[in-house]
Amino acid sequence: MDPAIIARQNGGEISDGKPKIPEGFVFDPTKYEQDTGNLAVYVCGFDDVRVLPYKVQALGDEDVRIQMKAIGICGSDIHYLKHLRNSRVALKEPMVLGHESAGVIIETGKLVKNLVVGDRVALEPGIPCYRCSFCKQGSNNLCREVKFFGSPPVHGSLAQQVVHPASLCHKLPDKVSLEEGAMCEPLSVGVHACRRASIQAGAHVLILGAGPIGLLTMLVARAFGAVRVVVTDIDEKRLSTAKEFGADSTVLVSSDMNELNEEAQAMQIAMEALIDVTFDCVGTTKTMTTALNITRSGGKVCLVGMLHDKMTLPLTAAAAREVDVLGIFRHRNTYKLCIDLLQSKRIDIQKLITHRFGFSQDEVIKGFKVSAAGGSAIKVMFSL
Amino acid sequence: MDPAIIARQNGGEISDGKPKIPEGFVFDPTKYEQDTGNLAVYVCGFDDVRVLPYKVQALGDEDVRIQMKAIGICGSDIHYLKHLRNSRVALKEPMVLGHESAGVIIETGKLVKNLVVGDRVALEPGIPCYRCSFCKQGSNNLCREVKFFGSPPVHGSLAQQVVHPASLCHKLPDKVSLEEGAMCEPLSVGVHACRRASIQAGAHVLILGAGPIGLLTMLVARAFGAVRVVVTDIDEKRLSTAKEFGADSTVLVSSDMNELNEEAQAMQIAMEALIDVTFDCVGTTKTMTTALNITRSGGKVCLVGMLHDKMTLPLTAAAAREVDVLGIFRHRNTYKLCIDLLQSKRIDIQKLITHRFGFSQDEVIKGFKVSAAGGSAIKVMFSL
Amino acid sequence: MDPAIIARQNGGEISDGKPKIPEGFVFDPTKYEQDTGNLAVYVCGFDDVRVLPYKVQALGDEDVRIQMKAIGICGSDIHYLKHLRNSRVALKEPMVLGHESAGVIIETGKLVKNLVVGDRVALEPGIPCYRCSFCKQGSNNLCREVKFFGSPPVHGSLAQQVVHPASLCHKLPDKVSLEEGAMCEPLSVGVHACRRASIQAGAHVLILGAGPIGLLTMLVARAFGAVRVVVTDIDEKRLSTAKEFGADSTVLVSSDMNELNEEAQAMQIAMEALIDVTFDCVGTTKTMTTALNITRSGGKVCLVGMLHDKMTLPLTAAAAREVDVLGIFRHRNTYKLCIDLLQSKRIDIQKLITHRFGFSQDEVIKGFKVSAAGGSAIKVMFSL
Amino acid sequence: MDPAIIARQNGGEISDGKPKIPEGFVFDPTKYEQDTGNLAVYVCGFDDVRVLPYKVQALGDEDVRIQMKAIGICGSDIHYLKHLRNSRVALKEPMVLGHESAGVIIETGKLVKNLVVGDRVALEPGIPCYRCSFCKQGSNNLCREVKFFGSPPVHGSLAQQVVHPASLCHKLPDKVSLEEGAMCEPLSVGVHACRRASIQAGAHVLILGAGPIGLLTMLVARAFGAVRVVVTDIDEKRLSTAKEFGADSTVLVSSDMNELNEEAQAMQIAMEALIDVTFDCVGTTKTMTTALNITRSGGKVCLVGMLHDKMTLPLTAAAAREVDVLGIFRHRNTYKLCIDLLQSKRIDIQKLITHRFGFSQDEVIKGFKVSAAGGSAIKVMFSL
Repeated sequence: MDPAIIARQNGGEISDGKPKIPEGFVFDPTKYEQDTGNLAVYVCGFDDVRVLPYKVQALGDEDVRIQMKAIGICGSDIHYLKHLRNSRVALKEPMVLGHESAGVIIETGKLVKNLVVGDRVALEPGIPCYRCSFCKQGSNNLCREVKFFGSPPVHGSLAQQVVHPASLCHKLPDKVSLEEGAMCEPLSVGVHACRRASIQAGAHVLILGAGPIGLLTMLVARAFGAVRVVVTDIDEKRLSTAKEFGADSTVLVSSDMNELNEEAQAMQIAMEALIDVTFDCVGTTKTMTTALNITRSGGKVCLVGMLHDKMTLPLTAAAAREVDVLGIFRHRNTYKLCIDLLQSKRIDIQKLITHRFGFSQDEVIKGFKVSAAGGSAIKVMFSL
Repeated sequence: MDPAIIARQNGGEISDGKPKIPEGFVFDPTKYEQDTGNLAVYVCGFDDVRVLPYKVQALGDEDVRIQMKAIGICGSDIHYLKHLRNSRVALKEPMVLGHESAGVIIETGKLVKNLVVGDRVALEPGIPCYRCSFCKQGSNNLCREVKFFGSPPVHGSLAQQVVHPASLCHKLPDKVSLEEGAMCEPLSVGVHACRRASIQAGAHVLILGAGPIGLLTMLVARAFGAVRVVVTDIDEKRLSTAKEFGADSTVLVSSDMNELNEEAQAMQIAMEALIDVTFDCVGTTKTMTTALNITRSGGKVCLVGMLHDKMTLPLTAAAAREVDVLGIFRHRNTYKLCIDLLQSKRIDIQKLITHRFGFSQDEVIKGFKVSAAGGSAIKVMFSL
Repeated sequence: MDPAIIARQNGGEISDGKPKIPEGFVFDPTKYEQDTGNLAVYVCGFDDVRVLPYKVQALGDEDVRIQMKAIGICGSDIHYLKHLRNSRVALKEPMVLGHESAGVIIETGKLVKNLVVGDRVALEPGIPCYRCSFCKQGSNNLCREVKFFGSPPVHGSLAQQVVHPASLCHKLPDKVSLEEGAMCEPLSVGVHACRRASIQAGAHVLILGAGPIGLLTMLVARAFGAVRVVVTDIDEKRLSTAKEFGADSTVLVSSDMNELNEEAQAMQIAMEALIDVTFDCVGTTKTMTTALNITRSGGKVCLVGMLHDKMTLPLTAAAAREVDVLGIFRHRNTYKLCIDLLQSKRIDIQKLITHRFGFSQDEVIKGFKVSAAGGSAIKVMFSL
Repeated sequence: MDPAIIARQNGGEISDGKPKIPEGFVFDPTKYEQDTGNLAVYVCGFDDVRVLPYKVQALGDEDVRIQMKAIGICGSDIHYLKHLRNSRVALKEPMVLGHESAGVIIETGKLVKNLVVGDRVALEPGIPCYRCSFCKQGSNNLCREVKFFGSPPVHGSLAQQVVHPASLCHKLPDKVSLEEGAMCEPLSVGVHACRRASIQAGAHVLILGAGPIGLLTMLVARAFGAVRVVVTDIDEKRLSTAKEFGADSTVLVSSDMNELNEEAQAMQIAMEALIDVTFDCVGTTKTMTTALNITRSGGKVCLVGMLHDKMTLPLTAAAAREVDVLGIFRHRNTYKLCIDLLQSKRIDIQKLITHRFGFSQDEVIKGFKVSAAGGSAIKVMFSL
C-alpha cells in the first residue's frame, strides 16, 4: 500500500481525453514466452493484466525463496494499471504488480538462520539500503534507495514464487493465517499513521474516508486505545461497513465545499468531545480544510490519503492553534506489531477480505475488475 | 492511592515490639463532641478508627460541596492506621482518612460554571498550587505544596460531606457509576505508571505483584494496547484472580533470593517474547533485581510498589543494557482518561470491588479490618 | 508578541480605500481626564496613540504592583494601531498597548512570597485560567480564557504602573538588565518555535524572513545547538544584519513565485547539508511553498509568521516525505529559560534594541512611527 | 570507549594477590613472526603490549582500506591490558587494542560510492548486524551481534592499516583534523549520554567525576545548551582542568560516605538552582547515592561510569520523586553530529589531547604507561 501513489490523479497525463502511454514503454509478448517455472501478473498496458512467465533473481546467501500463497490488490496496483505511472515515475516496461503478500518458505540461503523450509511468512515489501542516515536512525521508509515490491522499476510479488531477504520475511505464528499475513501490509499503513499521530489510550479520533485505509486506520486506532472513533464518507454503504467494523458514530458528507461548516458541526456533535486527531484518508482540499478546522487546539491532523496534489487551505488559523500536520510514507518496523495485534486478536482483519480469486488469467482479470470497481469490495485477495 | 507510602515498613518505629505513638500526637475525644451536621472517619490511634463529627472548610467561590457516596480504602489508609505516620511525616493529631471518592454536588460556589447541583462527580484528591514550575509544566503531582486528601496534615474524604475545588471534581457520565468514580483514584496510579513507562500497542508487559495496584496496572496496560501481560505473585489465589481478570499467564514466585534465576526463567518462558516493560508493584530488593535482570535491553522498569527503602541492586549491568528505571508519585491529569476508559468499557473495574460496607461505627471498623486482612479482599468500598 | 496577529492583512476591512472604524468603537476624551496617578499609552483611533491617565485594577493578595521601566513595541501593537483589530476581534474602545515589559516591584499582595519591593522583574504577559485541560497539561498558551496584555479586551502594559500576578513576574538576576527583561517576551516566541520544532544540537536550520522574529529565532536556534543557520529575506540590509548577528549564510530572495526553484537551489547550496528544520517567519504562499519543498524528508516546517490566511500549497508531496508542519501560538513556560540564556550569555539580545524613546506624548508618537517604518529599526524600546 | 567495561573492577579475578591469566589464553610469539606488511599493537599478557605483524581481512566490495593516522587510548584498552578480560568475556588469545581512530583511505571496494582514495575519515568502531529489531529501529548499539574494535574476540584499530565498512567511515571536512576524527569516538559517549538524558537548552547539569568522559560529557552538555555545569571529583587537579575547560563551578569531594550530605549541600550551592540532570561518570555506590538524592524531582540521573557492579542505593525515595535512572552503552548514530560540532567549533576537543606518541615498540609502551598512570594525562594519542 503506497499512499503516496494511491489515486494521485496527476499520474496519467491526458491528451484528447485519452491517457498517454509513457514514452519508451513497450510490451513485447515474445519476451515472455520462455517457461521459467514461475508465473507472475504483469501490467502490460492500460487495463491490461497478464499472467506470464517471470524469472526471479538468484537466491542470495541471506535470501529465502517463497511459494506465494496469498496476495492482496492495493489501490496503487489499480493506479498503475490505469495510468502506467505514479506521480514521480512512469513504467518503462511491463511490471509485475503486488506487494501485499504471504507465502511458505521453500528454500533458504546459506546464511539464513531465522527461517526454515516450511515456515509461513508475511513479506515486508521494502528493501532499504541499511546504510543511509534514515536507515541507521530507524526511518527506513524514507531511505532513498529502498526497493519496494511493485514500485517501478522494481517488480512486485504477485507471482507464484519470489526471492526476498530473510530478514524481511516475518514468520507467522500458528494462529495467524496466510491471508492475515498478506494483510499486514495495508495494516502497516494504519499502524504507521497511528504511530505518527501518537494515538494513545483515550484518544478521540476522526477518520475522513471509509475506504480500506480509513477502515484499517480505525481498527488500529482502537487497538491503540482510542476511546471514540467517528468516521465520515460520501458513501452510505461504506459508512455502514465502518459502523459494523467498530466506528462509534458515522457522518455522511458530500463533496460540496458549501456544506463544510454544517458537516463539521455534525462531526463535532458525533464525537461528543474535542477531536484529538483527524486522519484524512481522502486527501482533498475539502477534507483537509475540514481536518484543519475541526481538530482541537494542540491536536494533530494526519494526511494519509493523497488525492489532490495542491490544496488551498486555511493553514494559518490551524497553525495558530498549534494543530500539527503530519504525513506518512508507507510504513516502517510495523510487521512485528501487526502480527502481535493479529495473534492476540486485538484486531480482526479477516472481515475486510471481501473477495477471493485464483491465479488463472481469467481469475486475475476478474480480481482486478472487482477491486477497481470498488463498491462493496474492500480487499480482493488472490489465493495461490 | 499513594504508592510512596503504601506499606513502607519503616513508617512505624518499633521499640519493645510495639509501635510508638508519634511525639505530640493526642486524641482528645472532647474536641469531637460538637455536632457539625457532618461525620467523618478519623484515625485516632493505632488500629483505632472512629466516626466523629467533622467540620469542613467554608465553601469558596470556586468550590463545590459534595455529598459523598462511595469511598474506597487504600493501602495507605491502612498504613496510617497501623503506623500513625508515613515515611516522611507523622500525625500530630487525629486525621480523617480516605482519598478514593465520589459523590453528588449539593452546593456550588459563586464562580463555578462547570458543575451544577445534582451532578455526580469523582474527586481528584490533590490540590496543587498551580503556580510553581511543576504545575505550569503539567507535572502537578510533583508540586511541593500539593494538598492531598488524607495525607497529613490534610484531612481525607471519608466523610459525609466534603468541600473541594470544582476544577478537581470530574463529572461522571450516566454510564459510569459512583463506585467506578471512586475507583478512578487507584486506577489513576495504573494510568500514570503506564504513561511513565510509555506502554504502547504491542507491549509485552511483566507485572511483579498481583495486589490491587498490580491488577489495576494490568487492566490499564491492556487498555493501552499491551499484547501480552504476565503477572507474578507469592500467593496462588491472587494469581488466579489475575488470570481471571485478564493476565495471559502467571508465575508463582517465592521471597527466596536463591530462586531468583529459576523464577526469572519461568517468567521469560511465560512471556514467549522479550519483556519490554516490567512494573515492580512490590518494591523489594528481590523484585527489583528480577526486574533489572529480565527486562530487555532498551526496555523500562517502573517502580510502583515501594516496600523497601534501600536496595542492593545489580544496577550497572542493567544500565549497560540501557534499561531505564522510572518511578512514580501518585498521578497527574488522569481523571478524564479514567472516566473515558470506564465509559467506553475499555476497562471493567467493578469486579475489583469485593466488599462493601456502610458508614456506621460498626461497619467502618469491619471495613478496615477486612481491607487490612487482605486475602480475597481487593477493594473495600464504603457506601454512604 | 502575538504571531497569530502580526501583520495579518485581513485585520482591517477596506472600503473606499480607507480602513473602517470597528462598529461601536468610540474614543471619548472626557473619559480620560481624571488624574489616576498613572499614565498609559492608548490606541485611540487609526494611527492615534495617546498618553492618558490609566486606572489599574486593585492589588489582589497574590498580585504585585510594578513600576514599569522598559517596554518594547511589537508588530502586533503596530497592527492594532493601523487596523483597530486583529483577525478575530475588533476593539470596542481605546486599549492600552504593550506586552513586552519589565519593571520594579513597588508593592506586594498579602500572600506574595516569591518577590519583595525593589525586585526587578520581567512580566509574562498571559494570565491563563490554570484550571482547564490545556493549563493542567502545561499548554497554558492554548488556554481559551487567557488574558494577554494588549490583546482586546485586555489592556496592555505600556504604562507607568501595572498590577500583575506575582507568579507571572520573573525576578531578574543582577546580570540581566530591565531591557533584556522586556526582551524576554519576543525572545519567548523564538524559544517556543525552537521547542515546537525540536531544535537540537547539530540541527541545520533555514529561516525565511529576517525581521525581529526571524532574528530572534536564529539566536535561539544557535543557543539550542544548531550548527548551521541560513537566513533569507527580500531586503539586503536585513540580511546583513542577520549575518552580523550570527547567520552562517544568507540568501536574497524576491516575492516572485517564478523564482521559487532557483532561490530554493541557492538556499540548498548555502546550507551545504540537508535542511532539518525551516522556520517560515513570513507566512506567505511563497515562503511556505519554499519551506515544504526544501526541508528534508522527515524534517519539520514551523510556521511562525502569518501574513497570509489561506495558502495554496504543495502539501501532499511534503506529507509523502513526512515533513511535519507545526504552528505556534505565543509561548508557554519560556521565561525561566530566557532569563537563564541571557544571564549565561548564551544569547546577546541587547544588540537588537536599535532605538529608545521616553514616555512623553511626543516621544511615544515618535517611537511608534520609527517602529512602524521598519527599515533599520529592529526593536524600539520605551524607557520610563 | 566502552563505558560498560571501563575500570569494572571485577574484571580480573584475584588469587593470591595476583590476577589470573584467563583459561586457555596463550601468547605464542612464533605465530607473529611472518611479515604481513602491517603492524598492530597487541595485548599479549598482563601489562604486555607488543607491536607485531597483523593480517587484516580481505577488502570486501563495500569496504575501504585505511592507512591509520591517529589512534587514542581508552580506559577500556588499559583495562584489557591489566585484566585480559572485561566483565563478560575473557581474552582467548592476544588481541589488537584500540577503537578511537582516524586515517586516510588507501583503497576502496568495488561498490563504494561515498568515499575515494585520499579521503580523511573517522572510523565508527561498531559493525552492527543491520537486520535485528534494535538495528532496524535505530538502536544499533544494542545489537547483540555488533562487532566492536578491540572488544573480544574482535581485533582493534591500533594498527597501521585496517579494513572497515565504508558506511562506517565518516569523511572529515577540511576544518576537522585527524586527531579530532579519532576523538569522535570518546566524544560520542558524551553525545549519547546527553541524548539519553535529553539535555536541552537551559539545563542545569551536575557531573560527578572529572575524568576524560566527565570532561567530554561537560563539553557536549554545553554544546547542547546547558546553562550551568558543575563538576565534582576527588582530585583537585582534575577539577582545575574541568574549570579551565568550561565548568561553571567545581566541588572537591572525598570517597567517604559520611561526607555525603555535606558534599551534596556544597554541590547544590554551587549549582544555584535545581539540578535537572546528574551524570555519574564514576559509578560507585557513593556517587549514585549522591546523584539520586540531589537531582530535582522529575529530573534524570545518567549512569555513565561503571566502577561498581552492585550498589546499595536509596532508589525508592528517588523513584517517588520521579527521578529517572538511565544508563548508556557505547553510542549510536553520533558521528555526523560529532563532526558537525567540531567543524562548527561548538566543541574544542584538541585541548583534551595531552600526550602524543609514535608507533615504535618503545613509544607504544610509553604511551600506555602514561595513559594508565592517569594524573595529568587526559587523552594519549598515537600518531602514525
